[in-house]
This record gives sequence, structure tokens and C-alpha cells, in this order.
Amino acid sequence: MAHPQTWPIHCELPVQWGDMDALGHVNHTIYIKWMETARMHYFDACGLSDSYKDTGIGPILAAIEVDYLRPVVFGETIRVETRMSRMGRTSFDMEYRLTSVSDSPQQVAKGVAKCVVYDYNTAKPAPLSDTLRSVIEAIEAGENTPSD
Amino acid sequence: MAHPQTWPIHCELPVQWGDMDALGHVNHTIYIKWMETARMHYFDACGLSDSYKDTGIGPILAAIEVDYLRPVVFGETIRVETRMSRMGRTSFDMEYRLTSVSDSPQQVAKGVAKCVVYDYNTAKPAPLSDTLRSVIEAIEAGENTPSD
Amino acid sequence: MAHPQTWPIHCELPVQWGDMDALGHVNHTIYIKWMETARMHYFDACGLSDSYKDTGIGPILAAIEVDYLRPVVFGETIRVETRMSRMGRTSFDMEYRLTSVSDSPQQVAKGVAKCVVYDYNTAKPAPLSDTLRSVIEAIEAGENTPSD
Amino acid sequence: MAHPQTWPIHCELPVQWGDMDALGHVNHTIYIKWMETARMHYFDACGLSDSYKDTGIGPILAAIEVDYLRPVVFGETIRVETRMSRMGRTSFDMEYRLTSVSDSPQQVAKGVAKCVVYDYNTAKPAPLSDTLRSVIEAIEAGENTPSD
Repeated sequence: MAHPQTWPIHCELPVQWGDMDALGHVNHTIYIKWMETARMHYFDACGLSDSYKDTGIGPILAAIEVDYLRPVVFGETIRVETRMSRMGRTSFDMEYRLTSVSDSPQQVAKGVAKCVVYDYNTAKPAPLSDTLRSVIEAIEAGENTPSD
Repeated sequence: MAHPQTWPIHCELPVQWGDMDALGHVNHTIYIKWMETARMHYFDACGLSDSYKDTGIGPILAAIEVDYLRPVVFGETIRVETRMSRMGRTSFDMEYRLTSVSDSPQQVAKGVAKCVVYDYNTAKPAPLSDTLRSVIEAIEAGENTPSD
Repeated sequence: MAHPQTWPIHCELPVQWGDMDALGHVNHTIYIKWMETARMHYFDACGLSDSYKDTGIGPILAAIEVDYLRPVVFGETIRVETRMSRMGRTSFDMEYRLTSVSDSPQQVAKGVAKCVVYDYNTAKPAPLSDTLRSVIEAIEAGENTPSD
Repeated sequence: MAHPQTWPIHCELPVQWGDMDALGHVNHTIYIKWMETARMHYFDACGLSDSYKDTGIGPILAAIEVDYLRPVVFGETIRVETRMSRMGRTSFDMEYRLTSVSDSPQQVAKGVAKCVVYDYNTAKPAPLSDTLRSVIEAIEAGENTPSD
């Protein structure tokens, strides 16, 4: 991709009390739920959500990697940013940056989700269509940045 | 119903570490998730799950009430029992009893879910069919107690 | 309480994609997690959170009741409002009103949490102190309405 | 480690209905919650849980990687196996294998958690003690395999 330092889609999510576990910090699975929410905003923006509904061709999650940088507690609000970091023929990667919102924002985690474009009708991977590629390129170029 | 002291459907669920919240006990929403799992086993057993898939007529949750009797922690296994406590024309109530499994079992919570039979095609309540009523009566009478 | 129609403490929470269950709507336990978040904001505001940390005397949840009024989906933001509806000697009730934020807001649920003031040192209920009563009365009277 | 093909600690967890998301499969964060439960069983078995309680020196999660191999639905039971795959001076890696229990078991996911031994008193990484190393070696050698 041509615009590695932009994060075209983001959302801001307040920490809920119940997000914390018995260690008194936000449980590590919640960071991944936050990334998923940002991913779904991206899929809504680029047309992958509609593609799934209309044709049965949609993304499926193959792998996830997360680095935890600092604990988060109730009271904080987390900004979740995402971008498409790789587009293959039938797969793509998305990167995430999670930051605690404040006067001096601190990054709290980063992650990558590896996705496959999947034809749920044939139960096989499917090519990422030229239309989707174009819309994604435009989003990454900042020409089309619908967000929350 | 004619058999108030039987609990025809049950399941046993081990507490997971992530079920605990920042107070070091299982979060109160998890008890309600456990009840839902028992409810779905009941719906599978009586035909309400199939009814929803086949005809679009299925249960919808209208209200829930839970009494918390003692805290639960990681390491315990919870037995969740349920029974149909009331059948109306288009609605029904289900009761739940949650017990920590051990040599001296202790009840940890009880609850009631109030459900409506809903026709998702017309977006209106629908009568509980005679067929479903018969199956539920048989389950409650202990004549048909599929469980996990 | 003297001010039954005010909701002194509130927060606004965006629905996350993962809040939805296999029926395509927000799972019913999530509404209760939202109520808990508003409750914790209230406890922070009135001093019950500090009381628990400083003296080991804090609230414990005894029961919850929720009425579900309409389904909620990803994309909505929920306003959660709470107020103290009853103060007894060693217990209190809190009411919740959940509304989907929009130009024409719609209430999606209401609920009540029944709490006991609990001395974790002696494992017994404890009186609600006069200090806490005064602060809560002031919050309910709108004299002191810290919120999200 | 000397015993790469053994999985000394495991647990079996029934899928709950509420584990499924709007796509009708178990949400990907639930796999990670299952891994955490197995990890805590391991920490209980090897003494890391007690170390944290007694001395304030305990594990902290630095990173997680998960490969999703096939979808899981309500009705399945998942066997979660874990082993120590690397021990460094102040850090260690744990591997996970998740299998759907049946007459012909199928692996549904695999993962790695990278942990740091952390002294919560000084807020710095701490060495993995010789005592812990010995117990972990024994567990991995199958000499001491407490499990649920």
C-alpha cells in the first residue's frame, strides 16, 4: 500500500467497568474486540459488509497478532485506528493502533488481523474484486474516509 | 405447570478465569449468560429452535430477574437447571437454579426469564402451538428429557 | 427519594460489533453490562467506590431486573441513565433507563439493581453512612452531578 | 524445552450459546478467553499464581498470536491444551492447541502467548526463579501433571 502512515478509519470507545478482569485491568480479549469494531467500520466503509450480504462473498479471519504495550483501566477512552496494510489476490492484512485518549495520548496496543476473502456459497477463497480494490485504495489514499 | 419441583433440562459449565471481574468474583452478567445456555438447550429439546429456523416463529426475551445468592470464583463448576414455570397464550416463563457443583452443592443464584413467542415475519406475538405445548408438557413431566 | 424524574448520572456507550449475538442483535447481557458501567460512575460520584477502597465497606449486588423494550444493533449509541430510587438502612435500589441516541431517541430497556452495603471485613451488611446519604441526596437533587 | 510434543495441562470447555456472534459462529475473542483459562490452570499448577499472591512477582501478557483453523458453534466442547514452549531469563512463551472434542477430533485453532515475569513492586521484569524453572521442567516432562 502506498500510504503506510495514515490510519483512514477509526472509532473511539469508552472503557466499561466490566471490561476489567480479576487483575484490575482491561482483559486482553477486550483489546481484540475493540479492533474488531474498527474492522467492521472499515468493512462497512469499503463495501465488504454489503458484498457479504448481497453475494455471500465476505471476509473471514485467519489469524490475529497483538502486542500489549500498557494496561488500561475503567475511566479511559480508547481510540482504535485501522488501515489496510496488504492486499493479496484472495487475502489481506489490516493493522491496528490503540491509543488512550488524553492530552498526552499513549499507545496501549498494536495488532494485525490476517483475513481471507471467502465465498460462503462455494466454501472457497475468492479473489478480492477490482471494485473493492479501488474503493480500498481510495480509502487508504484519504480520498474517502467515512468514519464514526 | 404440574411438576414444580423438577428441573428437566440442565447443563454444567466450568467457570473460566476471564469470567471474573475487578472484584475477583464472577461478573453478574456471566450468571445470565449461563442461564441463556440452559435456555437454548431447552429450546433445542422442545422444538422452539427448529420452529424459529423453519417458520420464523420463535421466542424473544421480554424480561429477566436474577437473585444473586453467593459469589463464584474460577475453579468452580456451575450446574444450571431450568424448567418452564408458566405457559400463557403467546408467552411463557422459565425458571433457573444455579448451583456450585461439589460434595456439598450450594445454590449460587436463581432467576426467571419472561419470553414471548414472536412471529418474525409479521413482527407480532404468536400463539404457542399445541404441538409445542405437548412437547413441553412431556419434558416437564419427565417423559422426554434430552439434556447435554 | 424526592426527585423521581431526574436521572443525575449518565454515560453514552457506542454499540460494538461483538456485542451482537447469533440472532443479529445486541445480546441481552450487554444491556446489563452497560447498566453496571453507569452504576460504577454513580459509585465514583457519591463516594461508594472510595469507601470500598478505604474501609472495605462497599456495595454488593443482590438482585437485578431488566425489561427489554426493543432490539439494538451495531451502529447505535446507547445513553444509560441511572438514579437512586430507594435508600434503606443497609440497602438501596438504583433504576436505569437505556435510550438509543438519535434525533428521535427511543427507550430500549429499563432496569433495577438491588444493592446491599456490605462490610467485607466482617462479611455482614453495614448501614449506609449519613455522609453517603447526604452526598446521594445532593446528587439526586441535582446539586452535584458529575457525569461522564 | 525437551518435550515438544506433549501438552501437559489441558481443560475441556463446552461452547456457550452466547459465545457466538452475529455470523453464527463462536467469536474469535472467545478462543483467546479459552486459552487464558488453560494458561491460568498452568500458572496454578506451576506456582506462578501463588508467586504473584505471595511476592507480587507474576506473569504479564506481552503478546498473543492465534491462527483460526475452522469455525466452532454452540453444541461443541473444546479441549484446550497448553505447554511451555520457551523459557528465557525474564520471559517465556506458551503454546495452545484447541480441538473440538468428538469421535474424530478436529483442531480448531492454535496460538502462542508471550509472557514476561514482572515484579509488580518495582514495576520491572524479574528473573524466572530456579524453583519455578524446576517445577515447569517437571510439568513438561510429565512428572507432575495436575489438571482439571
